[in-house]
Amino acid sequence: MKYCFGVDIGGTTVKLGIFEEEGKDIDKWEIPTDTENEGVRILPDIAESIKAKMEEHNMTKEDIIGVGVGVPAPVTAEGVVNGTANLGWKYKEVTKEMEELTGLPVVVGNDANVAALGEMWQGGGKGQKNMVMITLGTGVGSGFIVNGKLIVGEHGAGGEGGHVTVDYDETDCCGCGKKGCLEQYASATGIVRLAKKTLAKNNKATVLNADTVTAKDVWDAVKAGDEVAIEVAELFGSYLGKGLAIMATISDPAIFVIGGGVSKAGDVLLSYVEKNFKERAFFANKNVEFALASLGNDAGIIGAAKLALDNQ
Amino acid sequence: MKYCFGVDIGGTTVKLGIFEEEGKDIDKWEIPTDTENEGVRILPDIAESIKAKMEEHNMTKEDIIGVGVGVPAPVTAEGVVNGTANLGWKYKEVTKEMEELTGLPVVVGNDANVAALGEMWQGGGKGQKNMVMITLGTGVGSGFIVNGKLIVGEHGAGGEGGHVTVDYDETDCCGCGKKGCLEQYASATGIVRLAKKTLAKNNKATVLNADTVTAKDVWDAVKAGDEVAIEVAELFGSYLGKGLAIMATISDPAIFVIGGGVSKAGDVLLSYVEKNFKERAFFANKNVEFALASLGNDAGIIGAAKLALDNQ
Repeated sequence: MKYCFGVDIGGTTVKLGIFEEEGKDIDKWEIPTDTENEGVRILPDIAESIKAKMEEHNMTKEDIIGVGVGVPAPVTAEGVVNGTANLGWKYKEVTKEMEELTGLPVVVGNDANVAALGEMWQGGGKGQKNMVMITLGTGVGSGFIVNGKLIVGEHGAGGEGGHVTVDYDETDCCGCGKKGCLEQYASATGIVRLAKKTLAKNNKATVLNADTVTAKDVWDAVKAGDEVAIEVAELFGSYLGKGLAIMATISDPAIFVIGGGVSKAGDVLLSYVEKNFKERAFFANKNVEFALASLGNDAGIIGAAKLALDNQ
Repeated sequence: MKYCFGVDIGGTTVKLGIFEEEGKDIDKWEIPTDTENEGVRILPDIAESIKAKMEEHNMTKEDIIGVGVGVPAPVTAEGVVNGTANLGWKYKEVTKEMEELTGLPVVVGNDANVAALGEMWQGGGKGQKNMVMITLGTGVGSGFIVNGKLIVGEHGAGGEGGHVTVDYDETDCCGCGKKGCLEQYASATGIVRLAKKTLAKNNKATVLNADTVTAKDVWDAVKAGDEVAIEVAELFGSYLGKGLAIMATISDPAIFVIGGGVSKAGDVLLSYVEKNFKERAFFANKNVEFALASLGNDAGIIGAAKLALDNQ
């Protein structure tokens, strides 16, 4: 039996796991992310943690297929990062450093892409080869898998579906500096923005309160039949439908897997997305399934382990 | 020395070529496309032509790496076509049939995708691994290459960049049935449409005539400094810039290669596209080169040969 490590580096904690080749997890744990001094300790801390776990489980280097790592930044195919928002890293050769620190084969990917790989291997997209995963959280992340392989791109910035333009009349700026990005409508903050706009021009009775409304409030109200909330859900669905239609013309997936905090709304959310997608999709792309992500916070370590497996 | 065949099936003629492994062409020829009776003779005619050429050049099956074929329709990874606009085919297992007819290894792809592969191997994108080719002809075709491999997609309909939406206020329909597709603005017919609209609301002196204007007229007038033509070129550039910015968020290319009849306008066209792309692109995708396609009508057979080579 051989094993691989999956590592998911976040701004606060690093999640780690040991997996068998078929995906069964042997161990899962976390260590803090030390972002001091441009994050100089992050990789050595991970390497030490891996070595300690190998000893604990009586594993030698020969038992380990490799280490997969997800990083919250664009990562080139060679495992190079050119700056991160949350880790303090500037230019960093992550694959090279981790291989030197661990003496094990290492492969590194963007965290949203790696999570998509995890959902394809063990989660909502199990059994598929052509998949797009959309993560609706504070922002909108995405990962594109084509014929079983991630779209990484020349600068490691492939699969940024949150920044396709879905409204050319938008006057507000996205965090990225552009206007009209999908992220401005389909993220948790985007839904709050749509809700506030809808409430401002609406006189209908509603349980939603413009001062305190959250994405969860909106979906709870949709489930209760609140008319104003349903208007917001329709808007959300139309923007996300536009975005997914565009993504499908490029990558022609078999399935969209929707994850992230917002997706906890469940099947009701899928229904708004699917209907709006089908109304807008290119004819050759309409035969697409929709599913909810099922791995939650473990998608990152599971996908990272799969990255290591595929790298053999 | 081993060889491969490149075949590019069009609605009127089938182009064929024999290539060495490094890309040198040994022979190039054409046969008519017989679309009678649901195109039943197309593949047998190609197979007979290949066999005759092998005899002519004293080649045995052992000398041939394989046959690559480009088809003007979506083609699945398994080489299956589900209907074509120009060949008469309905459901057809192209790879399987061609392998039975020739006794050689066969691989089949969509013609626009295959042409992109040709331009990456021997043309405007030589030496690159991450490329998007846009073909501006009667319509707008595209081919996406990620890490050296084509994006084929689940239904063989990946890389349909001509149908990303770049105007949500459009009232006219695209040939595909959607509204606001890139093809409605950046194709030869799209440029004529933009020119007519610009002429209708313009009183400036111009050499352009609304009744007879062609895409070539527009670009010739741009080169001559015609103010109205320059307005049209700016409009064209803004739409194509929007479309390429969206494509880059998904596939993060190193280079865009622009081909097709419209691209004969040359560097002046590239300047309008590049400027508009850079104004609209996601920050991580801005470092992209632009080049003109250089293989002309041979891109299809060259790319098909490369498809066969990569399939070994």
